[in-house]
Amino acid sequence: MAEPRALMFDVFGTCVDWRSGVIRAGEELGLGGVDWPALADAWRGRYQPQLETVRSGERPWVDLDVLHREALDELLPRFGLADLPEPQRRELTRSWHRLDGWPDTAEGLGRLKRRFVIASCSNGHIALSVALARHAGLPWDAVLGAELARAYKPQPEVYLRSVEALGLEPAQAMMVAAHPGDLAAAAACGLRTAYVHRPDEHGPGGSAEPPAAGAVDLVAGDLIELAGRLGA
Amino acid sequence: MAEPRALMFDVFGTCVDWRSGVIRAGEELGLGGVDWPALADAWRGRYQPQLETVRSGERPWVDLDVLHREALDELLPRFGLADLPEPQRRELTRSWHRLDGWPDTAEGLGRLKRRFVIASCSNGHIALSVALARHAGLPWDAVLGAELARAYKPQPEVYLRSVEALGLEPAQAMMVAAHPGDLAAAAACGLRTAYVHRPDEHGPGGSAEPPAAGAVDLVAGDLIELAGRLGA
Repeated sequence: MAEPRALMFDVFGTCVDWRSGVIRAGEELGLGGVDWPALADAWRGRYQPQLETVRSGERPWVDLDVLHREALDELLPRFGLADLPEPQRRELTRSWHRLDGWPDTAEGLGRLKRRFVIASCSNGHIALSVALARHAGLPWDAVLGAELARAYKPQPEVYLRSVEALGLEPAQAMMVAAHPGDLAAAAACGLRTAYVHRPDEHGPGGSAEPPAAGAVDLVAGDLIELAGRLGA
Repeated sequence: MAEPRALMFDVFGTCVDWRSGVIRAGEELGLGGVDWPALADAWRGRYQPQLETVRSGERPWVDLDVLHREALDELLPRFGLADLPEPQRRELTRSWHRLDGWPDTAEGLGRLKRRFVIASCSNGHIALSVALARHAGLPWDAVLGAELARAYKPQPEVYLRSVEALGLEPAQAMMVAAHPGDLAAAAACGLRTAYVHRPDEHGPGGSAEPPAAGAVDLVAGDLIELAGRLGA
């Protein structure tokens, strides 16, 4: 395999721990008796169905702040929070801009950046991705992904527009993600793929199903291991 | 003046020294008797007329690699280089991806980044901007500008699309440039403006005409001084 010129990264789950960050933001509101882990899971559970309304053309492209807020408003009554005031709703929605990286993320990306162009290729929009990068120390050379293409992964235009923005052919780029479906879609566009194992994405002590043998080009336990595997 | 949330930077001339970089790339080809400074000036002289063909709608948006190459091919005969082979033409065109920063650029941007979101808002496309950033150590939070808007400064959509991508209102962003025309266009879109004095842009011992009094919000001698003026 010829060396890729650039690595493009999924962010939610792959680089940052969305679940802990959302739970922490909820707990910081200081309300008693709310099952924040369940709310975080339900919130993320609304994500793919929401994206599908954009991918299907049912509604025009809107960014994740809009989708996160709509899903939150829909879910709050189920968690006894039907009357949560506007400022707290805004604060919770903004928690998706302030998620921590996994312990290996900043160091792994820093090493990979020395050898490769590194870019985010997230469904998060640019403003959200910039805020996350500053909060979690993600040293992107460029913020690419959904907003550039005005589409949502796994739609092929997100990968292809991002690769094109780097001036590369798909085979010169490698998509890095903790989600086999993201990688399968990238591979179908001609990109190389690296799977990163994030068993705690859906909670401590969880599990993550790795892709089928041969479905990806590389498998790594975290981003530091990925840097080592790629000689960075 | 309320503090801006983000600073957006012109790159060619403001952050990097295009003229020295292009001259150096020419000299490195090892050909005798070519007036590389004159060629660099003539090459840059083709820039605004070329951009105007896109801005006017005469041709669709194409990136600067295309425009730089077209101008080079047009100019070479005048400099005795009508027969310059293809690899050297490509090498010269690529020299626009490898320009050095001014001595204050990397340190000034690093300081500003601690306090503000910093983004490029250049007519350079994303791949070129990423290459320049890696070469010259420009630590952008995001690469915005012409390619995102598929327009060329001073068209307002370049500034407005870039500000929107950061999730800001125009008045929350400040455009930083060495060129009064760039700043006037940004100000007309509602952005704050900072002028940086780059008297050597067109050669050592040159001069640069600062904007008229009151035309910009800040004037600084370089990016380190700008950081100081903005408390960064």
